[in-house]
Amino acid sequence: MKITTKTAHFSTPLYLESGRILEPFEIAYETYGELNEAKDNVILIAHALSGSHHAAGLYEGDRKPGWWDGLIGSGKGIDTDTHYVIATNVIGSCFGSTGPMSDAYPSEEPYRLKFPVVTIKDMIRAQKQLLSSLGIHHVKAIVGGSMGGMQALQFAVDYPNFADRIIALAATYATRSWTIAFNKVAVEAIRNDPRFEGGNYPRGAFAEEGLEGLAIGRIAGHISYLSPESMDEKFGRNYVGTDGLFELFGRYEVERYLEYNTNNFSRVFDPLSYLYIVKAINTFNLSRGYDSLHDAITRIKAQVHLISFSGDYLFFPSEMEHIARMLERNGQPHTYTEVQSDYGHDAFLVEIDKFDGVVRAAMEN
Amino acid sequence: MKITTKTAHFSTPLYLESGRILEPFEIAYETYGELNEAKDNVILIAHALSGSHHAAGLYEGDRKPGWWDGLIGSGKGIDTDTHYVIATNVIGSCFGSTGPMSDAYPSEEPYRLKFPVVTIKDMIRAQKQLLSSLGIHHVKAIVGGSMGGMQALQFAVDYPNFADRIIALAATYATRSWTIAFNKVAVEAIRNDPRFEGGNYPRGAFAEEGLEGLAIGRIAGHISYLSPESMDEKFGRNYVGTDGLFELFGRYEVERYLEYNTNNFSRVFDPLSYLYIVKAINTFNLSRGYDSLHDAITRIKAQVHLISFSGDYLFFPSEMEHIARMLERNGQPHTYTEVQSDYGHDAFLVEIDKFDGVVRAAMEN
Repeated sequence: MKITTKTAHFSTPLYLESGRILEPFEIAYETYGELNEAKDNVILIAHALSGSHHAAGLYEGDRKPGWWDGLIGSGKGIDTDTHYVIATNVIGSCFGSTGPMSDAYPSEEPYRLKFPVVTIKDMIRAQKQLLSSLGIHHVKAIVGGSMGGMQALQFAVDYPNFADRIIALAATYATRSWTIAFNKVAVEAIRNDPRFEGGNYPRGAFAEEGLEGLAIGRIAGHISYLSPESMDEKFGRNYVGTDGLFELFGRYEVERYLEYNTNNFSRVFDPLSYLYIVKAINTFNLSRGYDSLHDAITRIKAQVHLISFSGDYLFFPSEMEHIARMLERNGQPHTYTEVQSDYGHDAFLVEIDKFDGVVRAAMEN
Repeated sequence: MKITTKTAHFSTPLYLESGRILEPFEIAYETYGELNEAKDNVILIAHALSGSHHAAGLYEGDRKPGWWDGLIGSGKGIDTDTHYVIATNVIGSCFGSTGPMSDAYPSEEPYRLKFPVVTIKDMIRAQKQLLSSLGIHHVKAIVGGSMGGMQALQFAVDYPNFADRIIALAATYATRSWTIAFNKVAVEAIRNDPRFEGGNYPRGAFAEEGLEGLAIGRIAGHISYLSPESMDEKFGRNYVGTDGLFELFGRYEVERYLEYNTNNFSRVFDPLSYLYIVKAINTFNLSRGYDSLHDAITRIKAQVHLISFSGDYLFFPSEMEHIARMLERNGQPHTYTEVQSDYGHDAFLVEIDKFDGVVRAAMEN
């Protein structure tokens, strides 16, 4: 599979939902497969909070492929033999698109906290601008999970004629207090960390030793991505190391897992980007800008394929069902699948064999 | 209702599960009602993580009564007209019983991190010592929710002849990884806070400005005490203050609630006590010291009344059901009630009118 990684530069302004303008801006993106002549084989992939445009394939020297490599590739659910797949990095990210640590033009200083708040609507507007610049004005499908699913749904509502179908996994119609509360841990832990310096940390400050505040916030994140059942299965009550059970800081296996993963994450992910992307998730509400959720949903012309996971403790199946019921009542074309899984929210990343058939069928529909 | 608040001093050693000894030690406790001549009207109350021996009644000048005031009092589910109710403060606490900030005898310096790890088994052993010192060698009932429910269950297993009945609410048979993960946020946030000084903070350091790390950890706690449904009902997606939706640090109502409650808590609760009590919760496992959970449960001679809450996201109804099924199979006298509630784990504190009838019936049984 051919992987092409690029960054597109835009000197045109990006008009944000807040009324502010981002100019210039860049979008990092990756493509797999070939664009056909009719330009009608495009699938757009949208990533989640911690993701990037590296959705599939293996970079030279890497051991770990892109985050949805099980779904995207030759002969896979999203088949790159017949499709031209474009995965873009959201604005606000720290992986190549313009974000809070990018230069605030015309200075060479980062925006930091002067970066404008971006929303899911802004993310997809930027993506649309990218596709327009590539001469793509219509896509076969938009696919995403979690925050990626929010983007897919928002596309369907805001640009009803743009995609033939959207496939949204493990998402919702509006972020609930429950999720905002989980995100709050990260917001407070980052802000209160002295090394965050109110956002004025030096570039590259956390490459060696990640920001503890981000790691702490990420613990709460991991809880919400797993589930009681998946934790039972993964960790049980296993105790690790040579410390005895009666050492105050002796650790259960689940604790070691959380430490390891969150420490790694805090060296890789920029804390300001985390704050901005979390804000975009918190403010997500499909009905904003429309009279009601019903009004927003009614605009959709694409086929909508919704996939939820029974063990998802972040965005519960009932939330996707709520959308499905509205589509049903309106007679809008859609499918709804609840995948049985104990992997929690993360199932959309790890239980691909349980839903790639649904994705394949949707593409052929 | 007559409230008596006392502290009992013990110069006898408390032998801990870890093999260590706590000596001397103190237990703060409160009593309501009168001990009858036969000494057979005693009900022991056990508190949860953030609780204390002040379970009921109003202190002079206070606005807020004890944490289970709705359940304990004249004519209430736990009727102080006919019962002598004793609520004790667990060892490790910061509210009067010996804990990590108590003087490490014979010095006048606090134990701090030299305080021994205490377990639920240790907590009830201390309580038993207190009751013995009061001449009480048998009780009518032991009642507690959450960590208090763990204590009640542990009493039933470790001292089968001690109580006629135990009533455990919103608890479990062994703490699962899910709960340990929530607690992990607090452990890391406290340890990483520079003002914690590795446990060497001055006494009273947080009376004015609470430890941020404890407040952050407590955010995760509050998430686990509530539920998606209770948050929808309490907060929805309401946005507060004069900051607009597009201010990075503008807040949703749920965020304000979390800030307010956790900041208050961090001024009142000692962070070392929090670490120790959380450790006691993490290590809770009814089967430790016995061949199996079945073996532990089989020891029980008391009537066991289990009450779970349908919306509890910390200790799920299925965990209490698991105990009930074992009792059922063994033919041991018990009742199991799942209370329908959207209040999450906190239901055991706030939905008293939904279960006080069960408590009353259990007492009369």
